[in-house]
Formats: sequence, C-alpha cells, structure tokens
Amino acid sequence: MKLAYKLWLDHHGKAFGDGPYELLKRVKKTNSLHQAAFQMSMSYSKAWRLIRTLEERLGFALLERKTGGISGGGSKVTPEASRLMKQYGQFRKEIEKTLTELFHKHFGQGL
Amino acid sequence: MKLAYKLWLDHHGKAFGDGPYELLKRVKKTNSLHQAAFQMSMSYSKAWRLIRTLEERLGFALLERKTGGISGGGSKVTPEASRLMKQYGQFRKEIEKTLTELFHKHFGQGL
Repeated sequence: MKLAYKLWLDHHGKAFGDGPYELLKRVKKTNSLHQAAFQMSMSYSKAWRLIRTLEERLGFALLERKTGGISGGGSKVTPEASRLMKQYGQFRKEIEKTLTELFHKHFGQGL
Repeated sequence: MKLAYKLWLDHHGKAFGDGPYELLKRVKKTNSLHQAAFQMSMSYSKAWRLIRTLEERLGFALLERKTGGISGGGSKVTPEASRLMKQYGQFRKEIEKTLTELFHKHFGQGL
C-alpha cells in the first residue's frame, strides 16, 4: 500500500503544478519552449497554450519570447516565473517529505 | 490563490480515498448501500462495482451483505472497514491541517 496524490495551485482553475514546473525547468535549461515541450513528449502548440492559460490565471508572464533569428527565436523564463519555481520547488519538496511521514505514522502498522 | 489536491491509497490502483470514505460513512449511518449511493447521486451498480474493486485491491471485505427480507436486505460495514475508516479519517484530517500550514508557509506572502 502506498500514498498517491496530485496537487496544484488553483486560481480560477489550475494555475501551477508539477507539469508546468517541469516544463519551465526545461525551458530554463534549453532557452527553448520547443525543446522543453519535445523533451516532455508534448506538442509545441499544447505547451504554448498551457503557458498562456497559466499566465492568465497567475496574472503575470512566465516566458519572455525572442522572435526571429537563424535559430527561430527562443524563450526565457521571466524573473517572476523564476521566483514561483523556487517557491514551488521548496514547497513541493517539503510536501513530499511531510506526506510520507504522515502516511507512515497512520498506516505504518498496516491497515 | 489556493492549494488544491487529491490523494488516495494505492495498491494495484486506487484502493481507498475520499469518495469511498464518504460512501462507507453513509452506509454506516443508513445500513444500506442503496441509500448511501443515492445520497451521493451515484447509481447503485456503480457503488457496488466500486466496493468490489476496492475490496479486491485492499484484500479484505468492506461490506457484509444481508439479503432478502421485506426491506430487500441491507449492508453493514465490516470491522476491517471500520478500522480503515478510522485510520483514514485521522490521516486525512492531519493531512488537511498540515498542507494548509505548508501552503501558508511557502505562499503566505503571495507569489
């Protein structure tokens, strides 16, 4: 028996969670939403729509877009998105630890 | 902004969570899976299949069924199910409290 869970930040709908966090981490590494989406087996259009939806719900931009150039532009994580990623990452880590502890406390002896 | 989450006990699939907990609480009150399902706007056949699936995954019976009689029988929560409900209820309550605290700790100052 194990504990399973999903969690997300909600503001007029899903505003941030593990999927977006992972996507933005990959954008940060690659400076490319195309690359990040590809790495997550997500279509670029889906990733783009996701980002736009989250930006609307959060009320700030997550990506700065650079257009044109021989590389076809690129994407950079905004300072606000960086801060959110840091907050979320710490939160997520503490949640994981705490939930594991609580599960063992209540179900460690079995059902 | 608020925190949203879903959690469940997993053993070869969803084995217990808020929905089953609520359903069993209502069976306990009414001694009837029919009544409990009706109160939750769930069809009896769906509730029955759910219980059977959970019983398979948990490895023990959740309901004792009494058949026949003028009332068409009824259902009673087993001692094992009672114990699980108690464990889960306490676990769930502590989770709720802890997650709220962690959310405020990490996001209390806003994003």
